[in-house]
Amino acid sequence: MTADLFLGADVGGTGLKYVVVSASGLIIIRGEVPTAPDDVGATLERLREAVSEDLSGKSAGNQVTGSTEGLGSLGHLAAVGLACAGIVDLESGSLGRSPNLPGWEGTDLTSQLHRAFGSLPVTLANDVNAALYGEFKAGAGMGCNSLVMIALGTGVGGGVLLNGQLHTGAHFGAGEIGHMVLDPRGPTCTCGGQGCLEAWAGSVGLLRSARAAASGSDSTPAFRNLVADRGSELTTRELSALADAGDMTSLDLFREVGERLGQAVGNLVNILDPDRVIIGGGVAQAGDHILKPCRQQVARQVLAETARTVPVIPAELGPHAAAVGAAWLARESRPTA
Amino acid sequence: MTADLFLGADVGGTGLKYVVVSASGLIIIRGEVPTAPDDVGATLERLREAVSEDLSGKSAGNQVTGSTEGLGSLGHLAAVGLACAGIVDLESGSLGRSPNLPGWEGTDLTSQLHRAFGSLPVTLANDVNAALYGEFKAGAGMGCNSLVMIALGTGVGGGVLLNGQLHTGAHFGAGEIGHMVLDPRGPTCTCGGQGCLEAWAGSVGLLRSARAAASGSDSTPAFRNLVADRGSELTTRELSALADAGDMTSLDLFREVGERLGQAVGNLVNILDPDRVIIGGGVAQAGDHILKPCRQQVARQVLAETARTVPVIPAELGPHAAAVGAAWLARESRPTA
Repeated sequence: MTADLFLGADVGGTGLKYVVVSASGLIIIRGEVPTAPDDVGATLERLREAVSEDLSGKSAGNQVTGSTEGLGSLGHLAAVGLACAGIVDLESGSLGRSPNLPGWEGTDLTSQLHRAFGSLPVTLANDVNAALYGEFKAGAGMGCNSLVMIALGTGVGGGVLLNGQLHTGAHFGAGEIGHMVLDPRGPTCTCGGQGCLEAWAGSVGLLRSARAAASGSDSTPAFRNLVADRGSELTTRELSALADAGDMTSLDLFREVGERLGQAVGNLVNILDPDRVIIGGGVAQAGDHILKPCRQQVARQVLAETARTVPVIPAELGPHAAAVGAAWLARESRPTA
Repeated sequence: MTADLFLGADVGGTGLKYVVVSASGLIIIRGEVPTAPDDVGATLERLREAVSEDLSGKSAGNQVTGSTEGLGSLGHLAAVGLACAGIVDLESGSLGRSPNLPGWEGTDLTSQLHRAFGSLPVTLANDVNAALYGEFKAGAGMGCNSLVMIALGTGVGGGVLLNGQLHTGAHFGAGEIGHMVLDPRGPTCTCGGQGCLEAWAGSVGLLRSARAAASGSDSTPAFRNLVADRGSELTTRELSALADAGDMTSLDLFREVGERLGQAVGNLVNILDPDRVIIGGGVAQAGDHILKPCRQQVARQVLAETARTVPVIPAELGPHAAAVGAAWLARESRPTA
């Protein structure tokens, strides 16, 4: 039996998404198991069991691409990659600060992976770095040499890839683009700071801005009604649908987010001048409502004429991007025989 | 005769500084010739003549480190590095946008260097990138792997070094740290934008802020008098001397510059997490009046605890830093036999 498949997993606060990819990068299996918030071992055990079932062709519930007949067992896995929200110390193999996985902080992830998967080589990454690597290998960043990714989720994450390699920094602290301060007198951020990109462009910040806009005297009746009706259930998707319908207050709201995102992207292009900038995460579903003002702001800010038109494009891989990237990282870091 | 010396030159708006270094990095000669603002060829001819005289031991006017006896002639040069203010296209060898050298824009620098120095290998760099490389090889960044430099001159330049290599970007537009937008409603910048770091921390911006502060009702008499007496001759050095003497308005002024610099450095550390951040240029002569509030702001902004104490330190090489770096770049890029 040849071990030529790679497992990539992405642990979030509620669920662990995973994929199995072939040596050529074909996604053979996609799945998800619940995250045990305080039990890394139990979560990885669930992962092991689910993948084992998938590979044995016994699973019915997961999306399976291609035939699983004859895939056999875990023995087909050549390496495992795990992506985690938070600061992943690639030297010690442990998880540092992780607001979404507080019960996992300080865990020795490498040891836990070895407990679950025996002697398989394991690779770790921060989740947005993994998503960026996935886009680099199989998505919006294919063929590039340098990329910046910004993930507009509940919070705002980021990643930097230079010369075809993830840039993790001297203390694994690089890529915290969500906490770029865009105005020290701006809105308060979850990090305790003020005026971070995240305070405008993460969904928490965006929904707060939406509520503030609804109480403004010049907001549209449709916008006010949506915010009042949905209360704490309001989603960025609903606001985006309203913008699609031409609602001015919604459009203004997304334009502000886009301009702030553009300020951050413009700064990044002035610092790094990458081949492309990739925007992912749920808030990015608003598409051109955000991306158009973002690109206009970038063009205003970037000094080098040659860099002014760097493409700012949506991510392509969707919710499994980090799992795909983790699998690719496992594939690339596996020592070649 | 063995060719084992390296010439590094740094062209500014009024003068061209140069050094000759030995293969081991010893600075043997330091000098300066006037820049011909509209004549690249004449400027490089002056450089060639001055270096030729220095090497022949005929020059008396320049600072010469060590003995020049027996150095002979230009035949001792193994390679030449040229640093230029502006956007240097390393592929075509030409100079792009260059506010300080408008008469040199569009010049094919490589051809001009070959005209002056024959078949010697030549290397080009942006001036702040060259200064950063000098600090990396022989100054405040020795022993590091990743560095960010910010040069607080008339304007504000920057450079990024990662994995021991200058990061110039996909379109040679990287390192424009001076145009990081720190508040889109901030003061107008020379680039036409608003709220760039340069608008606060370049000497033009700083002196403008000083004049505004002098007209404020709570400014000190000493500060008001200095600004009134010196008029358009006012220098950052004089303001710094006043701050040294404990003048509150001066101290407030530098604290604001330091906090804005800290906002920029904090953003850079959150993005790149380098080993060190080096602050150079004339305005940096204000030392701790700027660096202390800068470091405090960095500590407030940086998310990863491990990266919060990244050293933010003064440059060490002084005005010849870019020439030194250009010589080192020439030395490193010379194909080894």
